Amino acid sequence: MSTTRREFIASTGKAAVAGGLFTLAENNTSDMAENKFIHHVYFWLKNPDSKEDKAKLVAGLKKLATVKTIKWFHIGQPADTNREVIDRSYAVSWCLMFDNDADQASYQTDPIHLKFIEECSSLWNKVVVYDSVDAK
Amino acid sequence: MSTTRREFIASTGKAAVAGGLFTLAENNTSDMAENKFIHHVYFWLKNPDSKEDKAKLVAGLKKLATVKTIKWFHIGQPADTNREVIDRSYAVSWCLMFDNDADQASYQTDPIHLKFIEECSSLWNKVVVYDSVDAK
Repeated sequence: MSTTRREFIASTGKAAVAGGLFTLAENNTSDMAENKFIHHVYFWLKNPDSKEDKAKLVAGLKKLATVKTIKWFHIGQPADTNREVIDRSYAVSWCLMFDNDADQASYQTDPIHLKFIEECSSLWNKVVVYDSVDAK
Repeated sequence: MSTTRREFIASTGKAAVAGGLFTLAENNTSDMAENKFIHHVYFWLKNPDSKEDKAKLVAGLKKLATVKTIKWFHIGQPADTNREVIDRSYAVSWCLMFDNDADQASYQTDPIHLKFIEECSSLWNKVVVYDSVDAK
């Protein structure tokens, strides 16, 4: 390993610790999210074929993403995968990472979140939420 | 902003780009995952009250996490949140990020994954999978 490479890894490690997002899993090339709160929401649209309604929801989520306690987010739609166990009936996926339950709770009552609900809740007719903390 | 802080951010930015995980969202303090494939699996145990079976599944997932195409993962369980829209009936959450569909497809047939299914599939009686790519 060259010094440059080593320094880069040290720097990346510091960044990860400072950002508080991930730690490198042992004996692993992937990163393990630890001490995190994953909030994953799936939306079903009232008008599932309306590209306009979907675009409105995605635009609303981009604004919602400015809530400061959100560590990272992904705005998704069903992938092309299609197996019996896969639910691909939803329109939009909204996956968020928080540092802890308190940050998630504060997001629920954040004015930006309340405005999102006011502006966008007429677009969907079903929402399913899965909140997960580290398995013990 | 002090020079040190600016340098730190530059360094973090480089790390993020090199890792290929996130880009900083515009006008945002949180990170947006872009060009990613989120594979989120929820497991319901055959014996939902068996701490031993849950521990076996979590241990199996930790081994499964060594599949090289996994960018990051989170092994979770239901948080304490409890609202009408929240499904907290599952036992274990397995949230993965891949760079693309091809990496996810290769994970499905990876020998480590096949071994996980062989060793652990007797533990669960229901699995729901949501695969999401960036919303267009």
